[in-house]
Amino acid sequence: MTIVYLNGQYLPRERALIPVEDRGFIFGDGIYEGVRAVDGRMFEWDAHAERMVNGLAGLRIAFGAAEVAALKGVCEKLVRDNGLADGEAFLYLEVSRGVAPRTHHFPPAGTAPTVFVVASKLNVSRPQREVGVKAITYPDLRWKRRDWKTVNLLGNVLARQAASEAGAYEAILHEDGVVTEGAATNVFAVVDGVLRTHPLTPSILPGITRKVIVEVIRELGIPLVEEAIPFDRLAGAAEIFVCGSTTDVTPVITLDGRPVGNGKAGALTAKVREAFEARLYQAAVSA
Amino acid sequence: MTIVYLNGQYLPRERALIPVEDRGFIFGDGIYEGVRAVDGRMFEWDAHAERMVNGLAGLRIAFGAAEVAALKGVCEKLVRDNGLADGEAFLYLEVSRGVAPRTHHFPPAGTAPTVFVVASKLNVSRPQREVGVKAITYPDLRWKRRDWKTVNLLGNVLARQAASEAGAYEAILHEDGVVTEGAATNVFAVVDGVLRTHPLTPSILPGITRKVIVEVIRELGIPLVEEAIPFDRLAGAAEIFVCGSTTDVTPVITLDGRPVGNGKAGALTAKVREAFEARLYQAAVSA
Repeated sequence: MTIVYLNGQYLPRERALIPVEDRGFIFGDGIYEGVRAVDGRMFEWDAHAERMVNGLAGLRIAFGAAEVAALKGVCEKLVRDNGLADGEAFLYLEVSRGVAPRTHHFPPAGTAPTVFVVASKLNVSRPQREVGVKAITYPDLRWKRRDWKTVNLLGNVLARQAASEAGAYEAILHEDGVVTEGAATNVFAVVDGVLRTHPLTPSILPGITRKVIVEVIRELGIPLVEEAIPFDRLAGAAEIFVCGSTTDVTPVITLDGRPVGNGKAGALTAKVREAFEARLYQAAVSA
Repeated sequence: MTIVYLNGQYLPRERALIPVEDRGFIFGDGIYEGVRAVDGRMFEWDAHAERMVNGLAGLRIAFGAAEVAALKGVCEKLVRDNGLADGEAFLYLEVSRGVAPRTHHFPPAGTAPTVFVVASKLNVSRPQREVGVKAITYPDLRWKRRDWKTVNLLGNVLARQAASEAGAYEAILHEDGVVTEGAATNVFAVVDGVLRTHPLTPSILPGITRKVIVEVIRELGIPLVEEAIPFDRLAGAAEIFVCGSTTDVTPVITLDGRPVGNGKAGALTAKVREAFEARLYQAAVSA
């Protein structure tokens, strides 16, 4: 039986109910996070918490830094109590604006946000990480504040569904002639011999894995250009990889059914992946 | 006590609960409708039903035309049972993709959609309809499939909140140099002596009130140009009105704090409003 956290209570998943008039359900009016746990430790908790606080402030949901900080203990307890303290787990956290009769504008001050956390076992696929995955390209349909990790996710859902139907792992999104990011990942590519990724703007999510990767790339002395990848150059990239809190560094070896580079995970990608994984697993040991 | 409909049951609003892992709450993965009822009769039901079916098909939620058609009886029962059969009421209907462990792509076929309907009393403000309202302008932050009436509504929520804080009724949205629509309405304006409104594209919601208004405008013999209003011409419009299922035809008399035209509801707007209201109330009598 899975135990989840809802509004201060720990209860069986089946009993975690909310009023149907929660603004999460009515407007997608909420912020979420996805946090990786290794052996019971939250990887890059502070960065996730900071991003969550920023998104909540952006939407002006009354749930501040101290309240987000307190969710770390909730995550740790859920990991322990659900038997996930050994190995890989994934924490999903969501805070919505709470329950109120439907009006677009915000409900009265004092309306309690809805707070939900669930932990689940994460099955990390070594073949995916080492051999790589298929990806498709898909138009970026999302709204303009992608820097806030909101639950207005239909653009992501439709892209990922298209990927799934194509037998692919991820959909790489494009808009106005450039690659933005993946449906649930950030995207890096080697174009004209240079590693590139979209800069941090409201057009993309400031990925926590992206942040760590930028750090390890600098440590490795690999040049990185934070400029959008022209969409018409993506198919000709020598290497592509996607990254995220459940994806780590995963090579993309076919794009829309055609091989990327020589169709095998690239050398630069492997180097970044190994350095990232050293951080991920070492952090767990030393945290 | 308000009685609502949830997944085949009629129950008190306070007991209308859904699992927190409903995809409506997790992804904003649902379609809604808002229907006007006058004296117990659903205004333009068929048009609302058709739009809802179209949105559900767009998102590929397994809830088809026959199932949507059956919700008319649910709406009528809720109006009766909640004492709303005399006068004005508003029906809110939502169908989400249902409950499933979180993955972006669709859950297995057979996952039951979540179906919710609530009726409420509508207070129609005659002064607003006749004297007019304030509006502000706001950037259109929404995703690209606004023709589907989804619950990915944060762009609308933030715009309407800004309007509310400015003491205004509505926010008129603009993007790429043109007016798209209001946060919860469609927008018409008289620019250079000609009545204009945005054409039906994925950039706007195909409003049911908009549709009826286009019909009455044609009956009245008023020329109408279905072309986007250049944003830089909006402030100089002689008349502006917004329309929607709870808004009917409502004149906008100030925009960002400055008077529209002579600062009073325009003659053309009044003509359209009266013809629309004749339809709205007559339809109820003759339906």
